[in-house]
Formats: sequence, structure tokens, C-alpha cells
Amino acid sequence: MDYSKMSPHEVRQLIREGKITTQTSGMCDGYAQGNLLILPKEQAYDFLLFTQRNPKSCPILEVGDVGSRELKYMAKDADIATDIPKYRVYEYGKLTGEYTDISHLWRDDFVFFLIGCSFSFESELLSADVPVRHIEEGRNVPMYLTNIDCVPAGIFHGKTVVSMRPMTPEKAIKAVSVTASMPRVHGAPIHIGEGAKIGIKDINKPDFGDSVTIHEGEIPVFWCCGVTPQSAVMSAKPPIAISHAPGHMFITDVKNSLLKD
Amino acid sequence: MDYSKMSPHEVRQLIREGKITTQTSGMCDGYAQGNLLILPKEQAYDFLLFTQRNPKSCPILEVGDVGSRELKYMAKDADIATDIPKYRVYEYGKLTGEYTDISHLWRDDFVFFLIGCSFSFESELLSADVPVRHIEEGRNVPMYLTNIDCVPAGIFHGKTVVSMRPMTPEKAIKAVSVTASMPRVHGAPIHIGEGAKIGIKDINKPDFGDSVTIHEGEIPVFWCCGVTPQSAVMSAKPPIAISHAPGHMFITDVKNSLLKD
Repeated sequence: MDYSKMSPHEVRQLIREGKITTQTSGMCDGYAQGNLLILPKEQAYDFLLFTQRNPKSCPILEVGDVGSRELKYMAKDADIATDIPKYRVYEYGKLTGEYTDISHLWRDDFVFFLIGCSFSFESELLSADVPVRHIEEGRNVPMYLTNIDCVPAGIFHGKTVVSMRPMTPEKAIKAVSVTASMPRVHGAPIHIGEGAKIGIKDINKPDFGDSVTIHEGEIPVFWCCGVTPQSAVMSAKPPIAISHAPGHMFITDVKNSLLKD
Repeated sequence: MDYSKMSPHEVRQLIREGKITTQTSGMCDGYAQGNLLILPKEQAYDFLLFTQRNPKSCPILEVGDVGSRELKYMAKDADIATDIPKYRVYEYGKLTGEYTDISHLWRDDFVFFLIGCSFSFESELLSADVPVRHIEEGRNVPMYLTNIDCVPAGIFHGKTVVSMRPMTPEKAIKAVSVTASMPRVHGAPIHIGEGAKIGIKDINKPDFGDSVTIHEGEIPVFWCCGVTPQSAVMSAKPPIAISHAPGHMFITDVKNSLLKD
């Protein structure tokens, strides 16, 4: 089955019926996918403030009303509790279960946060002829823990995690200009060049994801990464938090190209 | 006394000592000024979500920690309860008092929101040779209630209020490009041209502020305006809300030119 040409609505329907439980990468060509985080209202204020204070790490696509599973802006006829192929439930920071549907766990005080994802700007980079090495090499994007503190908010704090894509300086300039116009999916890079300046010891040994080839004459370009809010939440150890399983994202009705400001 | 060349720190000190109780327009050349809104924590979540959903109307410069009067990012050694020349207190949506200091009213559950203001982009427009008519004519900016609904959040909802500056189409293009890079002070215009399209009946009769001259060959350019969050809060009638008195703003340590993305 080729899901790349199907509409987000059709694919979400198959996910809801339990017919798709795999990663969503490559599905619904051109449409933005989002990271999920669900928290009880009690922790939601601090997290909303954390996203406001760290917009490059936590670019919000949509925040649900308290207790509501319905999306109003990013998708029609969607249910955040059933339309993601795989969810992870964390209690006090510990993974306690994986589910393909969380309807039975939903609570009246739950608030969902849909967070922009680098898939969206990568599709725009490729359109602008900027190479995306980990896609070329069929690997996961390399990610690094930096020494850059997030701005804390209530119970949430932590270091910034970045993703890296190597390219020539000429392409790096193009990449800044393309992604600067996309603040809802991490925006412009946070750093260019020497990893050591932001606390990265060995560029060939990412903390998460895979290492990629850096060709002669290329420089690493670093963007804020969606792992940052996830790790801030996990280390705050709230009584309950629910996220998507890695790579199992929510597919929106909004095209990547429309996430430009 | 010429306050235009003084530093924000010096002027805030004079305000704190009660030696300045006037409007802050023209003080501390080049530094950003912000609108204030203080709400109890109970209403702050809804308001924070309202600002997230309506970023062009409610561009946030800083949100305080619960109970804290201290600014961490926009100013050093500042006290939000003393460093504004005039405050207004509203109870259940009704103005109940004006104060030059609100220390005695401060509560442990208060959260302050400092909101970006069009003063900042006007200074950048002038630097780019874009005319700002109400400044030329020594009037208040004309503001209009539109038929554009804000995206509601909890108890907060309402129509969008816009400010208008007339200019030639050539200058309007320049103005879009200058302000698009300043999302923390309302960003790009929300509309250009015919006021009727956004529910404005008579461009010569603004709902707030003063009317300004529109020369032959000029078109009106409309930006979201800081009156929107104020009126959304007033109509939600929270038990208590505190704002700056019109024109009596908080002067930050951050230059307007640094509010660019």
C-alpha cells in the first residue's frame, strides 16, 4: 500500500481502525506531521509557559482545550486519542505502556500539545536543493545534548537537544533563510560550525539517532529538536504524560509549505 | 528634563520613586516598551493559551513566574509592581482604581504578562523611511474594531482590534517586509486596502484613537493591536486584572532593533 499519495484524512482513518500501526515517515506527501504530548491540566500551565519561553525547541502547532480530544486548527474530524499509530504512557517519568489507542485512558483534565517537527522543514530544504544527509544515507538524524540551558518554567527545565545536518557554507546560508521563515517547526538554526562551542564533544558520536558523513568543505548546522520538550517532561516526572512513540506521528491536514510565516 | 536620552534603568528608577507619573512615549530612545496585564494564576492559563492562539494580537515579551514581580529577560533590577508610571485595576471588568504603585495589591498568585507594542515597529518603520502618519500629525494611532474573531481560549474571546497607518503601495510593501521580521511586536499586517473587507464601516471614524489624513494614492495598512487582549480580558470580567494606564508603559532594557527574529 502506498500511503505517500493518500490524504491525511484517509490515513488517519486507517490508523484509527488499527490498520496502520507503523511509523508515519513518508506518509501523505507534503503534509505536516506533529509530535504529541499530553499532560494533566495541573502540569499544563507550566508546560505551556515552557513552550512560550523556548519557542525554537517547542514550536506549538496546536494546544487542545482542557479535556478535549478534538483538533480545531490543524486537522478536521480528527481524534487525538485514536489517530496516532502508537502512543507511549509515562508515569512519574517511567515508560509504563505502549498503546495504539488511548481512548480508555483519556481524562477530563487532559490537555494535548501538538508540536512542530523537523520533517516539515526538511521537505522545504529538499525543495530548495539543500541536501539532508541522513535522508540521503537512510539513517536517523544525528542529535546531541548541548550545554545550552532551556529557559525553565515551573517544574520544567533541562538542556537543549539539537539535530545536525552537514552542508557547504553556501547551502547553510540558504538553509538559514528557508528555515527562518518557519518558526512553527523550530525556525532558524541555533548554531553553525564548531560543535564544541555548544558542548558537543564528538560530532561523530551523537547522543541520539545515527552518525552521518560530513564531507570535506562542509560545516555542521544545528537546529533545536523536538527531543528537548520530551526530555524536559520526562525529567520533571509528572504523575502521567502521554507522547507519540518515536516516529509514530500525528499527520495534519496542513501542508508544510503553509507553515511559513 | 529630557528623558529620551536616559537609560531605561535610570527612567525606571525615577518612575519607582514616583518622580515620573506621565506617559512614557518618547522616553529612552530606541528601547522597546511593553503593555502590562496581570491576572491571578486561575485565569492565567486561559490567557497564556489565548496569547498562544492569537500571537499577532498578543505578542508576548515576557511572562513572569507565579507570584514573581521580577523580570528575567526583558529588564534587569526591575519590579513590575513599581516601575510603571500608572496602573489601572479592574474588578469583574470594571475600573476600580488608578495607582502609581501596586506593591500593596500584589498577591502570591499573580502572573504578569508583558506584551509587545507597536511603538517598537513604528521606530523600525521610520528608520526604513516608511511614513507613520499619526506621528507626523501628532495624534493617536487610529484603531478599529473588526469582524475578525480571535481564536477563543477558555474564558477569553472577542473580535480583533486593528491599528491603521496609511501609505503608498510601494511603502506598504516595505512595511510588510520590515514588520514581518518582528513577530514579537505584532508582526506583519493582517490586512491591506479596503477596510470594509474586515468590517470597518468608515475609515475616517476610528473606534479608538484619532482619525488621520489619507493622501491621494495611499492605501490603509492594518496591524493587529494591543487593545485586543485588553478588551478580551475586560469582557471576560475576571475578579481582578491589572493593566498599565494607556500610554504609561513598561520600558525594557531591550532595543527595538533586537526584537527582530
